[in-house]
Amino acid sequence: MSAVLLDGRSIARQIREEVKSEVEDLRQTGIKPCLAVLLVGENPASEIYVASKQKACEKVGIESQMLRLPASASEREILRLVSELNSDEKVHGILVQLPLPDHIDELRVIDSIDPRKDVDGFTPENLGRLLLGKPYTVPCTPAGIVELLRHYGLQVEGSNVVIIGRSNIVGKPLAALLVQKAEGYNCTVTICHSKTRDVTWFTKSADIIVTAMGRAGFLKADMVRSGSIIIDVGINRITDVTAPKGYRIVGDADFDDLRDIASHITPVPGGVGPMTVAMLLRNTLKVARSSQWNR
Amino acid sequence: MSAVLLDGRSIARQIREEVKSEVEDLRQTGIKPCLAVLLVGENPASEIYVASKQKACEKVGIESQMLRLPASASEREILRLVSELNSDEKVHGILVQLPLPDHIDELRVIDSIDPRKDVDGFTPENLGRLLLGKPYTVPCTPAGIVELLRHYGLQVEGSNVVIIGRSNIVGKPLAALLVQKAEGYNCTVTICHSKTRDVTWFTKSADIIVTAMGRAGFLKADMVRSGSIIIDVGINRITDVTAPKGYRIVGDADFDDLRDIASHITPVPGGVGPMTVAMLLRNTLKVARSSQWNR
Repeated sequence: MSAVLLDGRSIARQIREEVKSEVEDLRQTGIKPCLAVLLVGENPASEIYVASKQKACEKVGIESQMLRLPASASEREILRLVSELNSDEKVHGILVQLPLPDHIDELRVIDSIDPRKDVDGFTPENLGRLLLGKPYTVPCTPAGIVELLRHYGLQVEGSNVVIIGRSNIVGKPLAALLVQKAEGYNCTVTICHSKTRDVTWFTKSADIIVTAMGRAGFLKADMVRSGSIIIDVGINRITDVTAPKGYRIVGDADFDDLRDIASHITPVPGGVGPMTVAMLLRNTLKVARSSQWNR
Repeated sequence: MSAVLLDGRSIARQIREEVKSEVEDLRQTGIKPCLAVLLVGENPASEIYVASKQKACEKVGIESQMLRLPASASEREILRLVSELNSDEKVHGILVQLPLPDHIDELRVIDSIDPRKDVDGFTPENLGRLLLGKPYTVPCTPAGIVELLRHYGLQVEGSNVVIIGRSNIVGKPLAALLVQKAEGYNCTVTICHSKTRDVTWFTKSADIIVTAMGRAGFLKADMVRSGSIIIDVGINRITDVTAPKGYRIVGDADFDDLRDIASHITPVPGGVGPMTVAMLLRNTLKVARSSQWNR
């Protein structure tokens, strides 16, 4: 048996086309969706992510504004800028690229974003709504994972899902989403992490395994049951002298080891990553639409 | 073997004494902690809960204000009252007794409470902060469960915890609390519920089982492993013609069946219930203290 590849790149393309056409409709009504992206400092990975988000916006007709502050910016400066964006009627969505420099209280900055403009779904208000089962914007990676599974007609409803990793941007919000009493969810969810005594005991019986802890090739064939679905959120750079750049990007799952035992698996890159960006576009469309009745 | 009873009543008494002495200290600084309790309609169970909360406040020197609206009250009336309480400087904590009548959007009402006065920890903002690992007020039942385990010196850190039930007031916030990367937590958490295919498979290997779904005597000895810790949040009324009132209160766990296999078990009543009320007092103390720097 060889696993079906969950081709996030191609599904994301479809979603971007849908968003593009809906953005056009919205523009007809006089609303020009606009996303403000705030980048503090010069983290190279953040630069890449931000550039790809901006490019994706551009392609679907969403205007993006890039705002930069130096790594030395004070919390007060950042908060002041967010506050300006909150009250700027032309700006529908606000994205603060994480991580922020160490001297900044990340939660305070995120919490200062108007939840109605929160395209990442990271504000406490929006995460709380998600946990309550009444989400406004859903964090992009969790939303992208669900969307990817659905596009392949895979059964999410009622599944045993094991999530490895408890980050605020993937593990915890994904658990909050999947456990909901709602059609298409209703999963039995376990969150495993660095302090879990026996991860294999959990993964061995899971229908769906989501790896999101940032350890290259952690999940191996002997940890999963035959026929399971593997969703790999990891993005790890490993040295590879044969690669043009001297490194390559791999996930948290050992793809070659797993492809003969899993029923479905996401490649890295090209699996969850493009879905995350597609969901950002969809969230931006959503907040732009909502702006009609927020005012 | 016979399980150790986790005597919530006696631990709650200790906590109330501590709160009482801290309330006295706070009064010395000129702050008279005050909790406003809003009850809409005449649900008999709610009447009992509210009365017991008010009595508990009184005993520790927390002033409580009872506000009643008829079951026919409009959402607008409720929101107006909450808004008045939000801006009333003499009121430190606000508790809206749930459930609200069917025609009221419960989330909208809860969301209208100033998170700084939210003694139940039910606002989206506070639930989001909990999920992010930076809680302000923690919902009372989850907080009470952790407190009870700690008072008995039981190992929470790193445990396999299975929670049965995904309510917004117990199951989901408890999972959000226990999974955190923080000393004394770090649990591997599974949430089971009505759509879980094989609850026993999960409970059989749990170190700690929390039943919170409202089904009398659901958890039985053949579903747990020897030596597990059983925390029973259920409060179910069952007919008993031999009882003075014609009924008695039982939990979700079959106490008599489990007491020879569990290492520790909470009685119902007298286990989690009194801890919940004690945590409400502690949260009220907390919001009253915070009012000093909120202004």
